[in-house]
Amino acid sequence: MEQLKQKIRNEGIVLSDRVLKVDAFLNHQIDPVLMQQIGQEFARRFRDEKITKIVTIEASGIAPAIMAGLELGVPVIFARKHQSLTLTDHLLTASVYSFTKQVESTIAISTNHLSPNDRVLVIDDFLANGKAAKGLISIIQQAGASIAGLGIVIEKSFQAGRQELEEAGFRVESLARVAALSDGQVVFVE
Amino acid sequence: MEQLKQKIRNEGIVLSDRVLKVDAFLNHQIDPVLMQQIGQEFARRFRDEKITKIVTIEASGIAPAIMAGLELGVPVIFARKHQSLTLTDHLLTASVYSFTKQVESTIAISTNHLSPNDRVLVIDDFLANGKAAKGLISIIQQAGASIAGLGIVIEKSFQAGRQELEEAGFRVESLARVAALSDGQVVFVE
Repeated sequence: MEQLKQKIRNEGIVLSDRVLKVDAFLNHQIDPVLMQQIGQEFARRFRDEKITKIVTIEASGIAPAIMAGLELGVPVIFARKHQSLTLTDHLLTASVYSFTKQVESTIAISTNHLSPNDRVLVIDDFLANGKAAKGLISIIQQAGASIAGLGIVIEKSFQAGRQELEEAGFRVESLARVAALSDGQVVFVE
Repeated sequence: MEQLKQKIRNEGIVLSDRVLKVDAFLNHQIDPVLMQQIGQEFARRFRDEKITKIVTIEASGIAPAIMAGLELGVPVIFARKHQSLTLTDHLLTASVYSFTKQVESTIAISTNHLSPNDRVLVIDDFLANGKAAKGLISIIQQAGASIAGLGIVIEKSFQAGRQELEEAGFRVESLARVAALSDGQVVFVE
């Protein structure tokens, strides 16, 4: 997706050979117009998949997911990482290690909002080692719902997440695929 | 806002005389069409205020804020409650106690994204005692930016937040004002 790659080139900051900071338009400040374009692109790619729900994870997945949900006309569920007084339902959970936060956390979705009749599109901001994606997949499978695929805003193609998800049989659609972060530059997959 | 009140009546769950659960369309599962209507309504009410940025707080503020940002054509910043490896900038912070999570947390916004030239609309999902709103206001004022007002999805009018914010001189626009939660029913302000 060319607008996204241009934005990464112009406003992304390479912090190391593994960490790309996109706090200017995705992870802290968010560009709503870009998010709308991203939502439209996810919708275009998964339009024929009879999606009934989108599942993402707080906090940075919410903006692209909500725009895709608007385009596809389906609700969005965000998995919670932190306990809340109002989240009192029976919960489906998975344990996820976050590289960027360096903590293991439990993510949870209420059983109220997913059923075996659902066909789910998983959306997230980043795909690196795939830990968050696999946690979401585990929860969706616990609910007995089917998974149409994963829509990723930025993929770090030099980490194993995509390969492992594809080997497990999942369709992965990433809007920007980063081949390498080197000398402060972002190199995209051709 | 009538669509929102109808949604609260139909899908909100009164957990106690102080806690209203709206996990079906705002705090866990999100209704993108309703969020778009909410964004349009915030934009309508603040259209003449020359807003340059919207500030909200993760996670439930993001969906209504991003839709308002799309309508007003301005970026959205979400304050972070949790430290991230990529949030390495100089930070403006405030301490906020969350009633629904029963924890004190530090919320933070990078100095990179707010300046004295900004005129900010604060958006959040709930206004109760106003702790989160005051934390966001403190951060925006630390940045030297001005505050056009606060856009709230659901206000608990039986708690002191709105009154205290108005007494401090801030405009508060709430799309649904809850007068009381009693006998499992939501009573709105007339």
